[in-house]
Amino acid sequence: MASPTPLAPDHLGPTVCIGEILAEIVATTEGVGFKNPQPLVGPYPSGAAAIFIDQCRRMGGSAAMIGAVGDDDFGRMNTDRLARDDVDVSAIAIHPNLPTGTAFVRYQNDGKRDFVFNVWTSAAGTLSWTPAVEDVIARAGHLHVIGTSLARDHIWQMIERAAPLIKARGGTVSLDPNQRKELTKDTEGRFAKMILQTDLLLPSGDEIFLSTKGISEIDETDAIHAIFAQGVCEIVLKRGDVGATCFQSDGTITNAPAFIVKEVDPTGAGDCFGGAYVAARRLGMAVAESLTYACAAGARNVTMLGPMEGAGTRAQLENVIAITPRLDL
Amino acid sequence: MASPTPLAPDHLGPTVCIGEILAEIVATTEGVGFKNPQPLVGPYPSGAAAIFIDQCRRMGGSAAMIGAVGDDDFGRMNTDRLARDDVDVSAIAIHPNLPTGTAFVRYQNDGKRDFVFNVWTSAAGTLSWTPAVEDVIARAGHLHVIGTSLARDHIWQMIERAAPLIKARGGTVSLDPNQRKELTKDTEGRFAKMILQTDLLLPSGDEIFLSTKGISEIDETDAIHAIFAQGVCEIVLKRGDVGATCFQSDGTITNAPAFIVKEVDPTGAGDCFGGAYVAARRLGMAVAESLTYACAAGARNVTMLGPMEGAGTRAQLENVIAITPRLDL
Repeated sequence: MASPTPLAPDHLGPTVCIGEILAEIVATTEGVGFKNPQPLVGPYPSGAAAIFIDQCRRMGGSAAMIGAVGDDDFGRMNTDRLARDDVDVSAIAIHPNLPTGTAFVRYQNDGKRDFVFNVWTSAAGTLSWTPAVEDVIARAGHLHVIGTSLARDHIWQMIERAAPLIKARGGTVSLDPNQRKELTKDTEGRFAKMILQTDLLLPSGDEIFLSTKGISEIDETDAIHAIFAQGVCEIVLKRGDVGATCFQSDGTITNAPAFIVKEVDPTGAGDCFGGAYVAARRLGMAVAESLTYACAAGARNVTMLGPMEGAGTRAQLENVIAITPRLDL
Repeated sequence: MASPTPLAPDHLGPTVCIGEILAEIVATTEGVGFKNPQPLVGPYPSGAAAIFIDQCRRMGGSAAMIGAVGDDDFGRMNTDRLARDDVDVSAIAIHPNLPTGTAFVRYQNDGKRDFVFNVWTSAAGTLSWTPAVEDVIARAGHLHVIGTSLARDHIWQMIERAAPLIKARGGTVSLDPNQRKELTKDTEGRFAKMILQTDLLLPSGDEIFLSTKGISEIDETDAIHAIFAQGVCEIVLKRGDVGATCFQSDGTITNAPAFIVKEVDPTGAGDCFGGAYVAARRLGMAVAESLTYACAAGARNVTMLGPMEGAGTRAQLENVIAITPRLDL
């Protein structure tokens, strides 16, 4: 028998994500950096939080975005996209002077990426607790936290305020460590605080060891137990193009093989995976089924240029599931 | 006999421009705005001040740029380009946190342009009087002022401080009104102050009436006289694809017909015109010859995509002059 979902049911209120909304511009040639004129394509709606929330809603989960954009076409593009997909955009602030954040990305020949960012010095850097935010948090059923935002004081303060409010009304929390670089002292402490409030953890690869730093020679099983000991009920380990594994605190382990697709643009795959998984679990689906949708969401997203372009509706994901070969388990 | 140039000779010290340095990204399809992903090309070095100074130096005039960029590829692209062309870049500040300014531009079907700007909330907004600026101004021979910067308090303060220092050592001042919109109350006063220190005025079209506001039913000749009465010695009226006319305070009028070229990208034409004209006059060329180089610089620039890409060396401009048909006068 499948364990019950540890996440608050969808009808309690929307899944909320607090974070960056960006316009992404992608170089269409491989190479190094942006020191010369070159062909580009964009702007695409982007930002890890925005991608997550869009996929969550397209999967059928109710969803609300908390973010800030500029009073420009890049901001309108993002809010229009999210509104089109029926995400609640009432708590997206429009800054009168600062521009919408931008990210230029270029892939090098070896798959590494070069960036030119304007994120925290854009409107995204002014995100704050407004009456509109208060209203969304007061009716939210779930908070999804993206690890990179722990490094930003102003977002951390909002997360720290939102999480207990949502949990107090029976809501739940998921956390995607999303740590591309070493944790700093500051974020290490915040991550430790956050994990104590987390119901669902969504690490990628080695991120599973993030909460067991300092314990040497630990293996995956020990790391999993250390996380459960902190109150997490469910850990979904994203293994990229290999698939994913769900560890539940009752000992159940569920593997899901990846779909085999041709990768066009990997950006946003992890966020789509998470958005689909959280929506599926909150809608009451079992772990195995939720993992299949999540893998399909990640797979579909990498087949399309643009970080949010491949976010699929439930029907589109079912089509991926129906026609796409999977790795052997 | 040609009147002597009213501008300080090149050997007194470089022509200096204070203003914005930008990375420009250009939409390659005509249409409205940036609310959808579309093909783009860029980044191109840009910013009215940077375009002016680059053309000035390529024409053979000594030149120094005062501006601020971010610590990113867009900033390095600009400083590398200016340094390659032997512009003095010692007074370009590199901001540690703010990005280099950006301008996205898209042409509509009717030639109007849509923009998404991040200029004064980028590094460009932090431009200030540093020891490096002090050093450049102390050895400058000429200051070129772009009218749009009069609207920016921090740049106006630098111009107001630099102009008398340069004039005190025998230097001169040119002013390109560059007023796309109505003057505000603030900039109206600043423009009036600036014109009293100006030796060479470079208006486009109706901008010739800017300093005679309030005087009704004035014609071009009266406007010219009103400007001369304020101390300006030379007025070069840019008439776009028709050509240009120089009015000198001794009554001499010199017309120069435009070169007939196929326009690819009009951005930067006026700045290239001005840069070539100021360089030529400071190098001791007569009005007619200087106007010819200036028209060639404007013409060459519109034939190339990217606001600064068409800035020509003296040899390249001579090639334009040799092979390009001109309008009949």
